[in-house]
Amino acid sequence: MRYTRVEIGGRAVWGRVGESDIELLSESPLDGDPSVIGMVSIADAQWLPVVVPPVFYAVGMNYPRHIAHARAETPSRPEVGYRANNALTGHRSPIVKPAGVEGRFEAEPELVAVIGRTLKHASYDEARKSVFGWTIGNDVSARTWQHQDRSFWRSKNSDTFKPMGPWMETDVDALAQTTTLRVNGEVRASFATGDMVFDPFDHIVELTKHITMHPGDVLWMGAESTCQLEPGDTVDIEISGIGVLSNPVHIEGNPS
Amino acid sequence: MRYTRVEIGGRAVWGRVGESDIELLSESPLDGDPSVIGMVSIADAQWLPVVVPPVFYAVGMNYPRHIAHARAETPSRPEVGYRANNALTGHRSPIVKPAGVEGRFEAEPELVAVIGRTLKHASYDEARKSVFGWTIGNDVSARTWQHQDRSFWRSKNSDTFKPMGPWMETDVDALAQTTTLRVNGEVRASFATGDMVFDPFDHIVELTKHITMHPGDVLWMGAESTCQLEPGDTVDIEISGIGVLSNPVHIEGNPS
Repeated sequence: MRYTRVEIGGRAVWGRVGESDIELLSESPLDGDPSVIGMVSIADAQWLPVVVPPVFYAVGMNYPRHIAHARAETPSRPEVGYRANNALTGHRSPIVKPAGVEGRFEAEPELVAVIGRTLKHASYDEARKSVFGWTIGNDVSARTWQHQDRSFWRSKNSDTFKPMGPWMETDVDALAQTTTLRVNGEVRASFATGDMVFDPFDHIVELTKHITMHPGDVLWMGAESTCQLEPGDTVDIEISGIGVLSNPVHIEGNPS
Repeated sequence: MRYTRVEIGGRAVWGRVGESDIELLSESPLDGDPSVIGMVSIADAQWLPVVVPPVFYAVGMNYPRHIAHARAETPSRPEVGYRANNALTGHRSPIVKPAGVEGRFEAEPELVAVIGRTLKHASYDEARKSVFGWTIGNDVSARTWQHQDRSFWRSKNSDTFKPMGPWMETDVDALAQTTTLRVNGEVRASFATGDMVFDPFDHIVELTKHITMHPGDVLWMGAESTCQLEPGDTVDIEISGIGVLSNPVHIEGNPS
């Protein structure tokens, strides 16, 4: 199944995505068994971030080739950082490059696990069962700010820097897929989702030693490759078995 | 006015705090004009964190004496990090020290601004008007983990490490108050709230250059002094004009 959220009359509504239409749902599928209350065509949909997480976890260096490229140290255990909900945006909404950004402005294509239950002290098997679905994230990063600032507050958390969507897929072997990054239709990177130092379940086991995870929490799994984005570009991230997250890039102050 | 949230029959309910009772409210005062739907005595209240923020901002080094003590560099501009909602707990609920924590386990008494409106590109005056109320936070920190880990994920974000409460006070000159930290009734630190490098409004102006802030967002303002906590202690943080946030310290696996 594919679940997402869309904007209908100014409000966020959950939906179940079919071939050409989205069935609108009475409540979140994370909360129970929603009923169908309406329909919108995919062509007309205003996509929202698939969920607004109680906590937004992000794994940093987690793909060996990215670690080698960055000359970083390979993590010896799973750890996480955080991103901020203000930065979330939906499929097809613009990534807005702030007027003050200089230097590299990059896309980072990431697999995202959406947690479906409350859990602490999880075993690896419980961690596997705790993931409700899988979606796609773009960890857009302004590198000059990333190096200048004491935290990632504006380099990775400015408004629109965290596209997430288009939906979460509940039936996919997410670690046996291929992530493909395209800019204006041209392939810029392609890598196996599962080529991670520590997988999502390793992270959930480690996190829940000290942290209670909740339904709707998201865990972004890091990227192997990145690429430069320019205003006017359209960036697509495809993960086979899940879908394609597509966003145009705008410059601040210029809506077109 | 003093607003908070309490647990009633397993659900979170907003309340307006009086002398000896809490009036239960139909909705969040951040969303509109709630009506009174019930009452609970303060003696019987199960206090919850005053709000569950969409984004949980935390200022680090912000008091000159703390910066000097830590031999840190004085910030040249306002910046923020993040904390995680799983770590929030309410007034009178235990801070649970994890079994694996060694070394210093400390309280950090902080003034907290609760945002009341949606704002971006705020002026200093708009920033002043955007704060709905003020509360108290304890940025509990496990120092060995803080030094061992690549992020603050478990040193500052383990469950129960972020007591926030007891309420938010809407009518107070928050930067002209005194913060007092007591353990088992004994004063361990006392400092002027307003002796900051950058005040809350400076931070909001800087943040909203790139970030939209939303009602319920919280901004923790840093601490001047810290002190060690041991299981069995009770830690009180008083900010004059706001109130007292009080929490017992337990050890994991031992509820009493």
